Amino acid sequence: MMGHLAVIGIGPGDARYLTPEADVALAYAQALYGYGPYLDRVPLRTGQSRHASDNREEGARAAAALQHAAQGTRVALVSGGDPGVFAMAAAVCEAIEYGPDEWRKLDVAFVPGITAMLAVAAKIGAPLGHDFCALSLSDNLKPWDLIERRLEAAASAGFVIALYNPMSGARPWQFGKAIARLAQHLPPATPVVFGRAVGRPEESVDVVTLEAANGTPADMATLVIVGSRDTRVIKRPGRSPLVYTPRAVAEVSA
Amino acid sequence: MMGHLAVIGIGPGDARYLTPEADVALAYAQALYGYGPYLDRVPLRTGQSRHASDNREEGARAAAALQHAAQGTRVALVSGGDPGVFAMAAAVCEAIEYGPDEWRKLDVAFVPGITAMLAVAAKIGAPLGHDFCALSLSDNLKPWDLIERRLEAAASAGFVIALYNPMSGARPWQFGKAIARLAQHLPPATPVVFGRAVGRPEESVDVVTLEAANGTPADMATLVIVGSRDTRVIKRPGRSPLVYTPRAVAEVSA
Repeated sequence: MMGHLAVIGIGPGDARYLTPEADVALAYAQALYGYGPYLDRVPLRTGQSRHASDNREEGARAAAALQHAAQGTRVALVSGGDPGVFAMAAAVCEAIEYGPDEWRKLDVAFVPGITAMLAVAAKIGAPLGHDFCALSLSDNLKPWDLIERRLEAAASAGFVIALYNPMSGARPWQFGKAIARLAQHLPPATPVVFGRAVGRPEESVDVVTLEAANGTPADMATLVIVGSRDTRVIKRPGRSPLVYTPRAVAEVSA
Repeated sequence: MMGHLAVIGIGPGDARYLTPEADVALAYAQALYGYGPYLDRVPLRTGQSRHASDNREEGARAAAALQHAAQGTRVALVSGGDPGVFAMAAAVCEAIEYGPDEWRKLDVAFVPGITAMLAVAAKIGAPLGHDFCALSLSDNLKPWDLIERRLEAAASAGFVIALYNPMSGARPWQFGKAIARLAQHLPPATPVVFGRAVGRPEESVDVVTLEAANGTPADMATLVIVGSRDTRVIKRPGRSPLVYTPRAVAEVSA
């Protein structure tokens, strides 16, 4: 009896973002693992067991799912957004590399999903329309000075920057520090997009300037996109503005 | 009669990547615009007109779709992958900014999709499991020296790099030049992933070292992911290797 583990991205919100591939993979599973609120978004199916865990327990959750699959079970590990972007796929790979040999023999699949920056960008136009980077502001897993160095490298080279995990209760100061560092390289009027809970009923998307970004609320459900020098805002009568980064960069701005 | 334009990401390949939101938006349209091969992936529906155009005509295609919508038609502009990532969303915003005033009054929506780097990453593990950037190697729209400067900034700051449009017939030399520039900052053994036509019957995914990357074939249907110093390869008996970038960076490697 061969077990199987699928690490499945369910997208940022409700079922409209769930791909048919993810839906089939969820239906195939005998056991579902995941952070509680993500599991709650998966439709109940008879005969499936559910194993919810807390937010901070990625390593233990990955190991538990692999262990269960190694016993011959078809296991689905449910991830918000895309599993490969600041989510469960890397935790599963780490567990396989350092875990028992039998985990390397397992059939493991990763199912992509709509990651938060794509959903937020789509709500406002095309802020990621040119070269961009994605960076987690959490210093649980890397030193803060490295985060600042990366912000600096990305902003000064002209990348648009998508910030995941911009703020949490445990580190209220980091987002302001990041914005201050970016302000050393970008004009005060640079557009900054705050997407909160996108794809869920309480969603909101706001555009502010870099100058005003530090005073704008953000939390772990927020994805922030900081424009480059080229990012533009289009005002529209009776409609919300569009934010986009042009496809072309002129010689002069190089 | 109000027209409507939806700019829709259909993902990198077949229907398994098409979200329900994109499917509904496609069904709602009276007229479909897009690059021919992308339109060919959309199921035929009676009563819909189809307007295929060539690959290089993004600006004209965006303008034609907006013009048609402004006449009161429900128009869908079909984009491969995600429309906001090196695709049609920015071209539409550019057309709105510089086009007739009435285009600013139009109801325009962007529907996210699975972009190529997420699909390729999912096929091989979690190479984008830590901070990463996405960069187009095409110098149709930006000077080559800026591309080299961005490669350098991203590699030296420790970002994994997803390369879109790595090579075309018109510029066979660029990919080799990009790899050579990256080799100045990354070890020869750095893993490099080549994903070709992912999600389509002819798909292939290969892992080579940075040292060997220049000799590996790539074209416009290829997405290349260049690892960071931290990216790892897990060998598996009887299975293809996994490539992943760990979530944590130690103090020492900063």
